[in-house]
Order: sequence, then structure tokens, then C-alpha cells
Amino acid sequence: MKRMTIRIDFGDDRQLGPGKARILELVDTHGSITAAAKMMDMSYRRGWLLIDELNHMFEAPLVETRMGGRGGANARLSVLGRAIVQLYRSIEKESYAASATRIDELHRLLRPVDAARKAAPKKPGSLGRKGK
Amino acid sequence: MKRMTIRIDFGDDRQLGPGKARILELVDTHGSITAAAKMMDMSYRRGWLLIDELNHMFEAPLVETRMGGRGGANARLSVLGRAIVQLYRSIEKESYAASATRIDELHRLLRPVDAARKAAPKKPGSLGRKGK
Repeated sequence: MKRMTIRIDFGDDRQLGPGKARILELVDTHGSITAAAKMMDMSYRRGWLLIDELNHMFEAPLVETRMGGRGGANARLSVLGRAIVQLYRSIEKESYAASATRIDELHRLLRPVDAARKAAPKKPGSLGRKGK
Repeated sequence: MKRMTIRIDFGDDRQLGPGKARILELVDTHGSITAAAKMMDMSYRRGWLLIDELNHMFEAPLVETRMGGRGGANARLSVLGRAIVQLYRSIEKESYAASATRIDELHRLLRPVDAARKAAPKKPGSLGRKGK
């Protein structure tokens, strides 16, 4: 398993990273900040603060809310919100593609997992023989 | 200001990100885990744990220590350690180059900082006129 995560820092405390991208996608899928926060193991308050930050970060809000729906506000991505998520995911894909060879190189230099566990056992008793 | 930070996740709790890359570079520059940890505002213990994790993550240690020096162990990067740092920094550069156009696009969609401050003032009294 190899996965690359990207964080973009624009200065002035403005960042876009995996957490913000994910909460936007979850709002898009579920139409609810409550549901999105829950799926990220976050309190509603923390989810709301993250979205509030995103809504003030770009030239227009990324998430539009409508009060009064059952279970709190209903929420959906704005056109800009969807564009920002797509840009972020494209950046991730292009970055991975550009550096896949070097990431493979790093991967080959890793210690095999079994050897790593033997060297620094964390779960005593879980060192059964697995071959290789 | 635009900066991109990369984290690579290899599975099995093995990650390489900006903190690990930086502590390796600081050990390389200063020859001391104590100094490296201090420059990262970390306790010696946390710095040491980070390096211990790195030393068990790859096929050979990235940091070599020599006990008995004044002020604790003297430390330096192994050949592998230097190679890992270089790979990581190359991945960062190539990723940025591959996605610079889209990062610029994101940057253009940001709310201008003055407007962002007006919308969500954090430092009362700092909203002087700056033109524009």
C-alpha cells in the first residue's frame, strides 16, 4: 500500500489538506454537516468550524446551508466548492503520477514488515509465522 | 506564499512526512539529536522516538549514533539516511512542478486576505487601511 497525501499552504493560516477535502466530499455525498462530521469521527462543532473556515477562505462559500431541515441544517456544495475539491484531487493524482518512480524507490528501501516487527515488537504474541 | 507538503503512507503505520524529513536534515546539519529536536521545538525524547521509528522503518538505520560525546550521543546520517532525505525532497519538488498550474488556480480562487479578515476578524484593531 502506498498513498500520498498533500497539504497546500497559502500563507496567512490558510491551508488545504486531506481533512478539508474529505469533509467537503462527505457533505457533497450526504447533504449534511452532521453526517459528514460523524463519518470523520468529529464532533458537529468541529466539522462546522472546519467548514466555516473553508467558507471564509475562498472568494465565495464552498458549502451552502439551509436552516430548518430535520436534524439540523441541510448542506450542499456550491459550484465553487465542487471545483475546489476537483482541483485538490487532481493535484493529488498529478503529483503521485509525477513522482511514482521515486515513491517506488522509497518503498523498496523499506524494511520488510515482519523484520520490522521483530526489531521493534509492539504487539507481543502477534508474531506468528506468516512465511516471508 | 504557496507551499506544498507531502506525506507518504506505506501502510502498517509507516509514514514519511515533513517532520521526519526535517529532523533528518537537522541531524545532518548539526550532528546531534538534541540540537535537532530543540530546533523543532520538541523534547529530546520525542526527537529520539522519531529517529528510532525511522531507524526501524527502512532496511538499515538512517541515523548512526556514537555514545559518549559531550552533551549526549553524537549523531549523523548514514548513506541510506541521506538517500531517503534526497528522495523525499525530490518527490516534493516534482510533485509541485507537476501541479503548479492547478495550485495557482486554487490560489487565484482564495479570498483576498483583507476581505477574509473583515469577514472573520481575528485580531481586532489590526484592520487598518492597506489600499486595495
